[in-house]
Amino acid sequence: MIKVSVIGATGYAGAELIRLLLSHSKVELKNLSSKSFVGKNINEIYPNLNKNLDKLLLDENEIFEDTDVVFASLPAGLSDDIANKCFEKNILFIDLGADFRLDNEEDYKNWYGNEYKYKNLHKEAIYSIPEIIKYDNVYNKKELKNAKIIGNPGCYPTSIGLALAPALVNKFIIKDDIIIDSKSGATGAGRELKLNTHYTECNEAFAPYKIAEHRHTPEIEQTLSNIYGEDIKVTFVPHLLPLNRGIVSTIYAKLENKNIKLKDIHNTYKNFYKDSAFVRVLNIGEIANLKYVKYSNYCDISLHMDDRTNKLIIVSTIDNMVKGAAGQAIQNMNIALGLKEDEGLNFIPPAF
Amino acid sequence: MIKVSVIGATGYAGAELIRLLLSHSKVELKNLSSKSFVGKNINEIYPNLNKNLDKLLLDENEIFEDTDVVFASLPAGLSDDIANKCFEKNILFIDLGADFRLDNEEDYKNWYGNEYKYKNLHKEAIYSIPEIIKYDNVYNKKELKNAKIIGNPGCYPTSIGLALAPALVNKFIIKDDIIIDSKSGATGAGRELKLNTHYTECNEAFAPYKIAEHRHTPEIEQTLSNIYGEDIKVTFVPHLLPLNRGIVSTIYAKLENKNIKLKDIHNTYKNFYKDSAFVRVLNIGEIANLKYVKYSNYCDISLHMDDRTNKLIIVSTIDNMVKGAAGQAIQNMNIALGLKEDEGLNFIPPAF
Amino acid sequence: MIKVSVIGATGYAGAELIRLLLSHSKVELKNLSSKSFVGKNINEIYPNLNKNLDKLLLDENEIFEDTDVVFASLPAGLSDDIANKCFEKNILFIDLGADFRLDNEEDYKNWYGNEYKYKNLHKEAIYSIPEIIKYDNVYNKKELKNAKIIGNPGCYPTSIGLALAPALVNKFIIKDDIIIDSKSGATGAGRELKLNTHYTECNEAFAPYKIAEHRHTPEIEQTLSNIYGEDIKVTFVPHLLPLNRGIVSTIYAKLENKNIKLKDIHNTYKNFYKDSAFVRVLNIGEIANLKYVKYSNYCDISLHMDDRTNKLIIVSTIDNMVKGAAGQAIQNMNIALGLKEDEGLNFIPPAF
Amino acid sequence: MIKVSVIGATGYAGAELIRLLLSHSKVELKNLSSKSFVGKNINEIYPNLNKNLDKLLLDENEIFEDTDVVFASLPAGLSDDIANKCFEKNILFIDLGADFRLDNEEDYKNWYGNEYKYKNLHKEAIYSIPEIIKYDNVYNKKELKNAKIIGNPGCYPTSIGLALAPALVNKFIIKDDIIIDSKSGATGAGRELKLNTHYTECNEAFAPYKIAEHRHTPEIEQTLSNIYGEDIKVTFVPHLLPLNRGIVSTIYAKLENKNIKLKDIHNTYKNFYKDSAFVRVLNIGEIANLKYVKYSNYCDISLHMDDRTNKLIIVSTIDNMVKGAAGQAIQNMNIALGLKEDEGLNFIPPAF
Repeated sequence: MIKVSVIGATGYAGAELIRLLLSHSKVELKNLSSKSFVGKNINEIYPNLNKNLDKLLLDENEIFEDTDVVFASLPAGLSDDIANKCFEKNILFIDLGADFRLDNEEDYKNWYGNEYKYKNLHKEAIYSIPEIIKYDNVYNKKELKNAKIIGNPGCYPTSIGLALAPALVNKFIIKDDIIIDSKSGATGAGRELKLNTHYTECNEAFAPYKIAEHRHTPEIEQTLSNIYGEDIKVTFVPHLLPLNRGIVSTIYAKLENKNIKLKDIHNTYKNFYKDSAFVRVLNIGEIANLKYVKYSNYCDISLHMDDRTNKLIIVSTIDNMVKGAAGQAIQNMNIALGLKEDEGLNFIPPAF
Repeated sequence: MIKVSVIGATGYAGAELIRLLLSHSKVELKNLSSKSFVGKNINEIYPNLNKNLDKLLLDENEIFEDTDVVFASLPAGLSDDIANKCFEKNILFIDLGADFRLDNEEDYKNWYGNEYKYKNLHKEAIYSIPEIIKYDNVYNKKELKNAKIIGNPGCYPTSIGLALAPALVNKFIIKDDIIIDSKSGATGAGRELKLNTHYTECNEAFAPYKIAEHRHTPEIEQTLSNIYGEDIKVTFVPHLLPLNRGIVSTIYAKLENKNIKLKDIHNTYKNFYKDSAFVRVLNIGEIANLKYVKYSNYCDISLHMDDRTNKLIIVSTIDNMVKGAAGQAIQNMNIALGLKEDEGLNFIPPAF
Repeated sequence: MIKVSVIGATGYAGAELIRLLLSHSKVELKNLSSKSFVGKNINEIYPNLNKNLDKLLLDENEIFEDTDVVFASLPAGLSDDIANKCFEKNILFIDLGADFRLDNEEDYKNWYGNEYKYKNLHKEAIYSIPEIIKYDNVYNKKELKNAKIIGNPGCYPTSIGLALAPALVNKFIIKDDIIIDSKSGATGAGRELKLNTHYTECNEAFAPYKIAEHRHTPEIEQTLSNIYGEDIKVTFVPHLLPLNRGIVSTIYAKLENKNIKLKDIHNTYKNFYKDSAFVRVLNIGEIANLKYVKYSNYCDISLHMDDRTNKLIIVSTIDNMVKGAAGQAIQNMNIALGLKEDEGLNFIPPAF
Repeated sequence: MIKVSVIGATGYAGAELIRLLLSHSKVELKNLSSKSFVGKNINEIYPNLNKNLDKLLLDENEIFEDTDVVFASLPAGLSDDIANKCFEKNILFIDLGADFRLDNEEDYKNWYGNEYKYKNLHKEAIYSIPEIIKYDNVYNKKELKNAKIIGNPGCYPTSIGLALAPALVNKFIIKDDIIIDSKSGATGAGRELKLNTHYTECNEAFAPYKIAEHRHTPEIEQTLSNIYGEDIKVTFVPHLLPLNRGIVSTIYAKLENKNIKLKDIHNTYKNFYKDSAFVRVLNIGEIANLKYVKYSNYCDISLHMDDRTNKLIIVSTIDNMVKGAAGQAIQNMNIALGLKEDEGLNFIPPAF
């Protein structure tokens, strides 16, 4: 059994990691840490875990004991020291935060305000949306298998990267003027109390936020640029949905060639993802809905064309807590450790 | 007192008309008709009206008796005969349906599948988003005051026309590649039972629908083209929100001049709407949220710029049942009859 | 014009008071105070008020200037000093908090932990659910008209008092073993951030809270005991509903006389409330639903009998922010000042 | 592998059965039938099943081929013929509908309006809430293991039976005047389109329905009476919650002995359910919330006492689609076939 520990266990991504890891047949959940609840039992904070887990929350320093893998889900700027400790102890470190996502330290400084503390670790680290990274001809530079530090992607970049990869690889679309209108459920804002996620403020409400200034922008652009082979800048606007889980990204791009048929693009997408356990390319005419991926590691993609304006419209849906966070982190762990990629992740989304 | 009657009184737009008309001090609610509930009391269908209205639902033929104004909210194709009867009887007819919105009969045929039965009436009719039509220098061709037939705009076209009018009049943006990503609450789908608005299918769900093929597209393009003075085609994708009321349109357009400042665009918008009772242009930095316009006739507009990609991003919010339907219809009636434009429409949106 | 000021203007009850008072034709909104936002404009906190109110938030000490009426909506224990100042300045004080609701100081001490600071003021104060207090033969001891201090009832006690008053006055039910199962929307928990009203914790969730220990219990019992003429103790369990507004109380009581017909009880209720502007007794067979009273000052009551177990089941619905707080406070003000009881309160609830 | 087939596969209980059965390691999903969608692929109706199930919907007559178990989820009155066919073919039949729940045919006639067609089959059938039936000393008359026909309990009776069993067995409460106030999510109303579950009618709404006349009443009373050993009549009022899944039952009962301590009752409950995989008796002071049992087969029970009125208050929560329908049906199948009781049912409820 692989011994796995979680730092930031009482945040939403941490809680979801725990739930998924408990169902993973090759994993033993070892240590959990929390800043706010040290000494409490995890099932006091998350009573859903009753009868399933009975474990005290430790201080972060105690997390590295007798463990093979450490997941951390922390605010930006807190992961470098953890990564360093794991590296020294030969523990696989998977960061669900933002610290190991950006190759370019300048971008990290500009958008997050911090510097990289251990620059060598950042060279070692692999940022991985597995369905994309494994296409050698796309942008893979390092080997995910046997990685020591993995930067797990953000929720929006995952939904957007998967939606655009085949179109960019195949140059179906022009790289300029890509518009990305994303909508996320409220779990994306985490467990921390804020006015905009106070029930009465969020319920029966809807609006964009951080318009053209969301921190996921450089990460999105890094992925798209790597795939395309040239620098891409996008317009990205996220919105807050009055529901718990899921992201819908509606993406608008101009066709490179006005004569291309939707059917051909669709075939290319089907082929691109034909070996993927988790990406489902819907039939032409169907529309991706977040309700059908909730509580699962799937990404659904539907393709549409506006013949009147020569636009390709791509809709992608994921569960932001699973494929957009904890599920993809486990998927990355599986690959890094040589397990089956979908081990412990074959959840069928409920219909309602 | 102006005697007002409503055809299609038990649909959602009809019910909202009744609620608003009952608070209008110059209006007497006269006749109500319904296809499905003739002979029943309206407050059996809408118990919210108890103690406020006690009136039997009539057959459509009885609606024209002793009335000055007729509102109709019906599926496409059913309004021509009503308009004709009203015209003969010198009754002001305000159509909340789609039959008197499109100047170009070809568009109507293509998108709705019907022909115009009384072509002269369509020449007589005025399509009116009042805040736009009153700018003579914009596109007004006819006089709303003393109109006999008014085509009341659709909900999406209202939210989009108001958002784009000042930018198009002032040529701030390029007319091509305008992307409109709209999101509407479920009242927009009406009272008719359908699977996608069944509670458990719509709750905790989110998706676009009628991607690049919604019938409001030609109406949107007609308004924008009239304002701009040249033909405009847009990419328009509506989405269904899991909430009752409100539309948010997030609109993306390329700047004509990359050096223009957001402040200047903002000032132009403020000025354009300075005499408007209902359009609120938010301060720079604020973001329009549908929660602050619900149950009111307001349209909130916020302006944003993506300096990295030279895009103007406009967010507009309305209550689809008020400014997007019943409220705007009454606003049009007020103007047509020479009343104060905001008579009976000064509802303050609740904070929650 | 009556000059009215509001202490605690940025809490939910304060915000709702402002919205309602702005529509009241006899009132001029004068001073607003807030603990947290002194110096800010109220429409920065509540953007729904844009174009309707443009007023800086004052310190509480500045509230008494040039004002005829002061409303306060504050946590328990903070109203005595305000009441005293108002009393000295001959300002009508209406307390939406809990400090002037309980006649018996012992109850106040037991449930709220405080003492009455100005005991004479508490003798002066009138607790008023207007529909009940005006029945002289019921429990009215003082005259609401010309009152100087009014203890405005809690939301649950209002929904319950109105539901039970006619049954208790007429001794239809046994005073023991009354079970009250109430359900309230999340606005009842206020604007303060708490985990149980964090969006993702409250959405798709439901549970009771403060089981048999909610502070409204003594207030409920005071009202019922006064009506009945003997001490009544009830079992009261509130629940938190995943919606914004409204309370449903489902009340179970044993019939005094097993042979009484529902029709007779129903007639008595209709008669008891026949002059009331705001209580709507539904027809037999109909069931009160909170959706039909939202955003209004109505209380809907439906009556049901379980013949198999000889129970009277009463369902009552109110909007907790209107009839359960701000609306009833204005109704009390209207009566105290000799205005029409429903002045400024004739809102028709929307159907959706 | 056990070959399992489902009649009524496209209803909500059917869809949930399919989802759960696909995760059951001892089961092979064989035939699916549907009245409305014969010939369609199940994943056209439920796209959540994409990549998991690819199977055409058959006519009901084709369901019995090569199958060991048949589940049916149908409206009342349709199961007798199916049961008979299964019985003849030695197929285990598990009915999720109401036809095999009531021992007393008179009750069935009174509440459902039908007669039993094959009276011998009804003698053969076992109604089973497994946690209760297995207590021989409680009310078990027949052996669930090797049963041929199982009447799977209704959702409300399950939540109520589990909540009251230990209290009734131990005579902690008086059998008269038990009040049951239940609240259910909208999946309980099924997939059929109705006005009260139209999104805009159900969202931001709340009310009871079928007050003291719900068809689950005789089933509840049968269970309670069997447990107690004497006839029990209850007052039962269900409510419709604006959320997808889950039932909360708040139950009020008078204590037999006023001196009993909550701690003793709690210990008895803990002991009663100590071997149960699925019933979680919460600690004293905790309150059961439906959010912590969603998507799982758990029933959470919390116990409370109102010392002021000598009432025991019991709160129980289940997922109406799992423990209240499909999950319990599989649990019954497991026991009947000699599998581990929790085989395929160990879903950890998500925290959000």
